[in-house]
Amino acid sequence: MLTAARELVSEVGYAKLTIEAIAARAGVGKQTIYRWWPSKGAVVFDSILALSEGERGIELPDTGDLEADLKTVLRATAAEFADAEFEAPIRALQTEIINDPDLAAIYREKMEAPMREAKKQRLRSAQRAGQLDADADLDLVLDFLYAPLTQRWLERSRPLDDAFADALVEATLRAFRPA
Amino acid sequence: MLTAARELVSEVGYAKLTIEAIAARAGVGKQTIYRWWPSKGAVVFDSILALSEGERGIELPDTGDLEADLKTVLRATAAEFADAEFEAPIRALQTEIINDPDLAAIYREKMEAPMREAKKQRLRSAQRAGQLDADADLDLVLDFLYAPLTQRWLERSRPLDDAFADALVEATLRAFRPA
Repeated sequence: MLTAARELVSEVGYAKLTIEAIAARAGVGKQTIYRWWPSKGAVVFDSILALSEGERGIELPDTGDLEADLKTVLRATAAEFADAEFEAPIRALQTEIINDPDLAAIYREKMEAPMREAKKQRLRSAQRAGQLDADADLDLVLDFLYAPLTQRWLERSRPLDDAFADALVEATLRAFRPA
Repeated sequence: MLTAARELVSEVGYAKLTIEAIAARAGVGKQTIYRWWPSKGAVVFDSILALSEGERGIELPDTGDLEADLKTVLRATAAEFADAEFEAPIRALQTEIINDPDLAAIYREKMEAPMREAKKQRLRSAQRAGQLDADADLDLVLDFLYAPLTQRWLERSRPLDDAFADALVEATLRAFRPA
């Protein structure tokens, strides 16, 4: 069902996607979908979360070295954005999120908030270890790490490679190094 | 003609906009439009540039104080994004840029590149004045200043206020302070 949802959102976009179509593609009844998810938005966001989580759940690596861990994560994110299977459904959704405040709110609750919290947990661990300013605004830290990557991907303006991922991490850590 | 183009892109989106409709709204013939602009993309981007440039052309303030000047500019950008008349055509265009690589290329050439160059001129002046790392990657500096603002605006996730604009400037300058 998650695979069907993800394929369909890439193919027809979120607006034209129906629960019926997901059920048909997955070979199950419509009620089976509704038993697990309350809405179209919920199943679509879960389908994308499932793709990025794999079996690990949302958790960032914590080897004790913040810079190395963030580079691992940002390089992986850049690679995901370069992967057509991964990026197509997210691009379709992103477009509709921009124009649909209600969908944007579901996205924030189901997808953005849990991922943001997982990332903040890693940053808090770094604050305790003295690798990040204890007073840093963690939302701003995450914006610095992710917003340039997201914008370059959306606008296809510049390559998303390891060098760019590393530069983002290094500059962000300079901005928020411990006092 | 520029006003007509801007109004129409807000109302019907870029994909459905036609040169004929712009001409009709502006009360001119289609050939008048083609005398000045080679394509729909060209007239639309000029219409938006005209809105943000006013009579100044693209130029950033240079009082000699980089932090103050960037705060002035970022606060104004945040205010523009909060202005419905200004933001509606840009939101409509942004959506189509994300899904249309050709339109994205026109956008970069007509709109993004000249604005980026004007901003870099101000940053180079600050490098000469010793207020910014002489080796800084200026594209990355601009990403740090603008991408978080753009992303919060697109996703309507958090308020775009003076405090946020100031925090972006301060953290960016910490990341790229002179060695």
